[in-house]
Amino acid sequence: MSVEKKIKGIGENVLEQMKKGKNPYIEIPVRTLANVEFDEKTGIIKLKGMKAKRFFLNVAHARKFMQTLLVAAFTKGLIEQKVTTSIRDLYYALKRTLPGTKENTFEEQSESDPIIEDLEVTLDVLREEMHLNAERKGLMVGNCTILDAGDEINLRKMGTGGYGVPSNVEEEMIKFKKIDADFVLFVEKAAVFSRLNEDKFWKKHNCILITGEGQPSRGVRRMLYRLHNEFGLPIYVLTDADGWGYYIYSVIKQGSINLAHLSPKLGVPDAIFVGLTTKDVEKFKLPKNVTIKLNEMDIKRAKELLEYPWFKSKAWQDEINHMLKVGYKLELEALSSRGIKFISEEYLPTKIKNKDFIL
Amino acid sequence: MSVEKKIKGIGENVLEQMKKGKNPYIEIPVRTLANVEFDEKTGIIKLKGMKAKRFFLNVAHARKFMQTLLVAAFTKGLIEQKVTTSIRDLYYALKRTLPGTKENTFEEQSESDPIIEDLEVTLDVLREEMHLNAERKGLMVGNCTILDAGDEINLRKMGTGGYGVPSNVEEEMIKFKKIDADFVLFVEKAAVFSRLNEDKFWKKHNCILITGEGQPSRGVRRMLYRLHNEFGLPIYVLTDADGWGYYIYSVIKQGSINLAHLSPKLGVPDAIFVGLTTKDVEKFKLPKNVTIKLNEMDIKRAKELLEYPWFKSKAWQDEINHMLKVGYKLELEALSSRGIKFISEEYLPTKIKNKDFIL
Repeated sequence: MSVEKKIKGIGENVLEQMKKGKNPYIEIPVRTLANVEFDEKTGIIKLKGMKAKRFFLNVAHARKFMQTLLVAAFTKGLIEQKVTTSIRDLYYALKRTLPGTKENTFEEQSESDPIIEDLEVTLDVLREEMHLNAERKGLMVGNCTILDAGDEINLRKMGTGGYGVPSNVEEEMIKFKKIDADFVLFVEKAAVFSRLNEDKFWKKHNCILITGEGQPSRGVRRMLYRLHNEFGLPIYVLTDADGWGYYIYSVIKQGSINLAHLSPKLGVPDAIFVGLTTKDVEKFKLPKNVTIKLNEMDIKRAKELLEYPWFKSKAWQDEINHMLKVGYKLELEALSSRGIKFISEEYLPTKIKNKDFIL
Repeated sequence: MSVEKKIKGIGENVLEQMKKGKNPYIEIPVRTLANVEFDEKTGIIKLKGMKAKRFFLNVAHARKFMQTLLVAAFTKGLIEQKVTTSIRDLYYALKRTLPGTKENTFEEQSESDPIIEDLEVTLDVLREEMHLNAERKGLMVGNCTILDAGDEINLRKMGTGGYGVPSNVEEEMIKFKKIDADFVLFVEKAAVFSRLNEDKFWKKHNCILITGEGQPSRGVRRMLYRLHNEFGLPIYVLTDADGWGYYIYSVIKQGSINLAHLSPKLGVPDAIFVGLTTKDVEKFKLPKNVTIKLNEMDIKRAKELLEYPWFKSKAWQDEINHMLKVGYKLELEALSSRGIKFISEEYLPTKIKNKDFIL
């Protein structure tokens, strides 16, 4: 069913209930921790089946009921007009004072954002499919030609800058014209991405290079998802060897608890962690003085990671326990102590050739 | 003189002093507040003439003297090898323990970063010219074709994503092949940039669209500088109507106190503030409920702005006093209360047509 039809369905249901003289309601899957589970079979964090009904004639529900219909109607309009906009724009566009009252439809964006998430999960669509954009981040280059809103963009010819991955990378916006790559390398840090891009790593190793410029945006995660699921490309993940880097990997892999409803459309359970690890210090003969002593937070975080079901594999337990034992973490840039091209000419080729991964 | 020669000059001077049996030193312009001034004539914040000597044979100077030569030698190597890298890479690449001691060349990146700035100001070059990259941010689309590291990139064909402005946009990396634009529009927020890009604002109004994705990076500021100075394009600046937005404008225009040594190469004193202003609420009939009440910080900030010499024009004093009088600020997205295309079809065209600017 088209997204437009799904949205329309909400209104039609409400209308039907009203015609029958019933108290109209919208049924919405619950997004609390109690309704989140790690699905061992698919390898993602997802919602269980709990749903809640939001009634019109209920003092506790009426405001959110009204807001849900306002947001639904607005997004339907966006799709019809073939335009997209930001979730902040939506808030401002829908904010108004109800005539004769001091009541606003929305007081803050923190009221409209959860409604958008409610609709995502209720309709099983991404906000981007409803033409709503979140904050974008991330760059991409490599052996791939895309069509973005009809513009043909050759990602082999993006210079030192790169293509800015938009918020919305759905089929409607982004089509893949030609993909020659053998794999995708996701890099946490933009500076490391630039280094690899300058060394034309993607050309020599026939891949696509993507950076999240930190924690990957929804657009970047969805891009990884599509490249993996539509073209069967392995996704290699390269982050710092610290709790934050490992967390970024886990979000790419099985999603996050907070956004569990998105994992089925954003998670890549087959994503492969290529580095950096604390064991690489020995393996690649890095000087000890480029390591960073774990602080209390790091230790706490590492111990938490050990408990998550998705870090229960032997390889991950080994790595995290090793980190705690040696008492240090390290950044990707630490590889530059062996020379600035070490990462592209030695570290990554060795790791990939030897399949020295953590799964 | 080439950057390479300038860097080499430092070493040659030191060598010459040593040969003469003198205590070698490097003369470095002082980057403290006492040496910063607002130059009314050029309209930029810049360094005055104070310099300090950094001696080798001086317990208080020796460490920094050593660091300065290490960084200089490293950047000379980068230029010779025709590679660039990040300032964090430099820190790791140069970090080592002096043999037979527990002394490290650098303890933290916060030690190497100021040395890079010392070299920038001593040699009158940008770190990017020394092949060092800072964190990059920012996107660009519009009536312009560039060459980035030899790749021809047509910024009219960048889809919804855009071209990621790199850290280094010097002539050596970025060349302008064809520019058809009448002006450049700098937009603070990426979401607003995306909206304008989707509405093809740059095509209808024959311009180049750049976002800083917040406070503009050095790369974005240098890009604005080059487009203005090499092609005479006016730079229009579009930010939120708040202290932060006005500050972003002021940084683009005359630079910042902290990085005063960069203003001559990054500042665009002719930059034109096109909006948003608090007076626009009346002018464009925006509903009052999209304004945001000033908090104590906002009021303090606004009063500070009133005192800066570069906000002393009548128009700016009027706007900031108006903000304080009405007691609110507002975001660009507030324009969407008049419809999501209001900004591209009504607000900006009206502002530009009527030359309703603040200078």
